Amino acid sequence: MSEGIYQINPIGIIRSDLVSRKAAPSQGSEGAPDAWLEVDPALVEGLEGMAVGSEIILITWLHRSQRDILKLHPRGDRGRPIMGVFSTRSPDRPNPLGLHRVTVLQISGNRLRVGPIEAIDGTPVVDIKPVLPQAVDS
Amino acid sequence: MSEGIYQINPIGIIRSDLVSRKAAPSQGSEGAPDAWLEVDPALVEGLEGMAVGSEIILITWLHRSQRDILKLHPRGDRGRPIMGVFSTRSPDRPNPLGLHRVTVLQISGNRLRVGPIEAIDGTPVVDIKPVLPQAVDS
Repeated sequence: MSEGIYQINPIGIIRSDLVSRKAAPSQGSEGAPDAWLEVDPALVEGLEGMAVGSEIILITWLHRSQRDILKLHPRGDRGRPIMGVFSTRSPDRPNPLGLHRVTVLQISGNRLRVGPIEAIDGTPVVDIKPVLPQAVDS
Repeated sequence: MSEGIYQINPIGIIRSDLVSRKAAPSQGSEGAPDAWLEVDPALVEGLEGMAVGSEIILITWLHRSQRDILKLHPRGDRGRPIMGVFSTRSPDRPNPLGLHRVTVLQISGNRLRVGPIEAIDGTPVVDIKPVLPQAVDS
């Protein structure tokens, strides 16, 4: 089935006061803090056009995740029925990618202040995309 | 900056009548067809809870993309000012990940009929996530 293995190179890293998975809320909207995204200086040209106030989507590599889990209780709540990981936003999944819709609060060279975001300190960022105006693409 | 290189293994593949980048619209909402997503049979447990009518987000690996481009004319339109790739949805970007919000139209074993989707035939799929009810997470 798999037609290859692909390599992902982080384009940046999250610098946050959140330092453990346990302390992180499940979603940014659930009381998460703001954080810095430090973009690889070699890629800073890719930020051209980024503006304070923009809404963007960060795709992260949830490096503390387990990749061999296919079913689980959503949100770790044993009161909820077991579901397939692809029907949940669990960080534990075959390719541990995280999606985070955040607002750009400040831009300083290769650093973006963004938030709110539930990703913990040291989380690699692998892509940044604009939120599109059409609801279907957000 | 980069704290490692990560390996992505496709979890499935798109089977579509769209066979070239040139023929594909820029976004699913721009006249794209429906397609089949064939999930790796070894991962089919991860689909539990998926329902016809659900809105999901597919993350694809845009395998025909260039990874060394940092600035470009959005939508390949030379009339638009050059922007950094992270301010665009261009498939050409350091980690060529695509985001596609689609509806589940049919489920048949390890195959999901989804659409509309602009990804071309043979595009690897690397993750599936539910759209969350909160607008901030969609």
